[in-house]
Amino acid sequence: MEHVDKHAVKAFLLSLQDQICQSLESQDKSAAFEQDEWQREQGGGGRSRVLRQGSVFEQAGVNFSHVFGTKMPASATAHRPELAGRSFEAMGVSLVIHPNNPYIPTSHANVRFFIAEKEGEAPVWWFGGGFDLTPFYPFEEDCQHWHNTAKYLCAPFGDDIYEQHKVWCDKYFFLPHRNETRGVGGLFFDDLNEWGFEKSFAYTQAVGNGFIDGYLPIVQRRQDTPYGEREREFQLYRRGRYVEFNLVYDRGTLFGLQSGGRTESILMSMPPLARWEYCYEPKAGSAEADLYENYLQPREW
Amino acid sequence: MEHVDKHAVKAFLLSLQDQICQSLESQDKSAAFEQDEWQREQGGGGRSRVLRQGSVFEQAGVNFSHVFGTKMPASATAHRPELAGRSFEAMGVSLVIHPNNPYIPTSHANVRFFIAEKEGEAPVWWFGGGFDLTPFYPFEEDCQHWHNTAKYLCAPFGDDIYEQHKVWCDKYFFLPHRNETRGVGGLFFDDLNEWGFEKSFAYTQAVGNGFIDGYLPIVQRRQDTPYGEREREFQLYRRGRYVEFNLVYDRGTLFGLQSGGRTESILMSMPPLARWEYCYEPKAGSAEADLYENYLQPREW
Repeated sequence: MEHVDKHAVKAFLLSLQDQICQSLESQDKSAAFEQDEWQREQGGGGRSRVLRQGSVFEQAGVNFSHVFGTKMPASATAHRPELAGRSFEAMGVSLVIHPNNPYIPTSHANVRFFIAEKEGEAPVWWFGGGFDLTPFYPFEEDCQHWHNTAKYLCAPFGDDIYEQHKVWCDKYFFLPHRNETRGVGGLFFDDLNEWGFEKSFAYTQAVGNGFIDGYLPIVQRRQDTPYGEREREFQLYRRGRYVEFNLVYDRGTLFGLQSGGRTESILMSMPPLARWEYCYEPKAGSAEADLYENYLQPREW
Repeated sequence: MEHVDKHAVKAFLLSLQDQICQSLESQDKSAAFEQDEWQREQGGGGRSRVLRQGSVFEQAGVNFSHVFGTKMPASATAHRPELAGRSFEAMGVSLVIHPNNPYIPTSHANVRFFIAEKEGEAPVWWFGGGFDLTPFYPFEEDCQHWHNTAKYLCAPFGDDIYEQHKVWCDKYFFLPHRNETRGVGGLFFDDLNEWGFEKSFAYTQAVGNGFIDGYLPIVQRRQDTPYGEREREFQLYRRGRYVEFNLVYDRGTLFGLQSGGRTESILMSMPPLARWEYCYEPKAGSAEADLYENYLQPREW
């Protein structure tokens, strides 16, 4: 029987959270992460970290959680009867970064592992995750760097992995009521177990580790770009879309809220400030129109 | 056969929108409603009105819509097979008001009518609606006035109507993930047809007309209350809850977004500006704590 090393996954996730926080802190310099350790009544808990009012990051939330129970909730086994009667563990790192400078994109990453076990039987498990980028004032070279990072890390796992998970990301981070993608996408995958544990875990590690490689160079390139009220207002307006996506469509957010997850950790993805404006439309030919016209539908990078 | 006068309902709704807009304009003085008339491809349309950056109201959206079709969508008839194969009309007025001054509560009202018809058969129809109040810095007398208005208008329709629809409102405008009501409630009803058309319509008119009676005196009483950054910040923070409720739970919003409604009209309920703050808690004994401790669970008025 294949060895499914959940302890190695947990160790990776904890270390990933550490590394990402350290990278962001050393980039921001003026602010540090605060940490809250929390327990879940039904089993497990987490380590939530937030950096606020930094010089670069208005807010960065980087959460680790590991929840478990002796019995799967009925709602979770209705469509997966093979899980009924099993104990389960779900663990992951999830992060959302809201920078100050509107020339730096918002970014999100998540890696997660689920396992349901029963004595004498093979465990049922899968990995999921990805990362995606949400620019306000996009630069082609930034998006290309982001997607090249994704391509590069996917390559060892198969010729079509980038393409598959890139398309999945475009489909997942889409707002039908706006007919817009959330941003320029990246990678998204779920239910990954067909590769076996070792390769699936290696890929999940590559995705988790790839986030900083993809994001930090963009932050460094844009953090000193001068901006004014116009750019700030547009950033706040577009953050409204982020709120709409997360609260209306994001499965992780909705499942978390509905299943009694820790609300403050789940909603750490919300922007510190967001704006709505009835019937706003960017002026033709403006930098804002460039976002709408060239970056909010799936495209090749 | 009972006469179901849908034209009278429509005339009432259009006139209600006019009256509410006029009342709000004459209260604000410095700003006027702009109007957008829109058409729905599949049938019908609406008249959206928004007042922005007023001296009293940061934003007030007051929408009328009347949509119709020759055939009910399958999703809508799955649980109501008696509607299959019927033409339908849905009409209503819906409003959300976001005042500048944090001492004025946010308010919402809605009245709606649905009818599904088939030649030679009695129409299937119902009314729904209500109004609810969301204070930031609540005053007992304001909440009592609001609920007294509700009690007074309900009284002619039955001894227990206020109590029933008040409880329904408390249950509907509740955020489970926060364990908080959205505010101090008011009235909520749906599927009302058991009284017959005439009485149901009369009640719906009373609710629609009652909104201004309930709200304007509160606006007048609080609009000149001095406030500073602290109150503004708390208002923006609590507006985040309004966003959470509307996007995660509100059936009208979600149905509208999912059924291809006019996004800009539906999301006119979003606040112009909202704020989230990880793990915010009001200081013990503060005015903010008073809201949390005394107004965010159902109570008698």
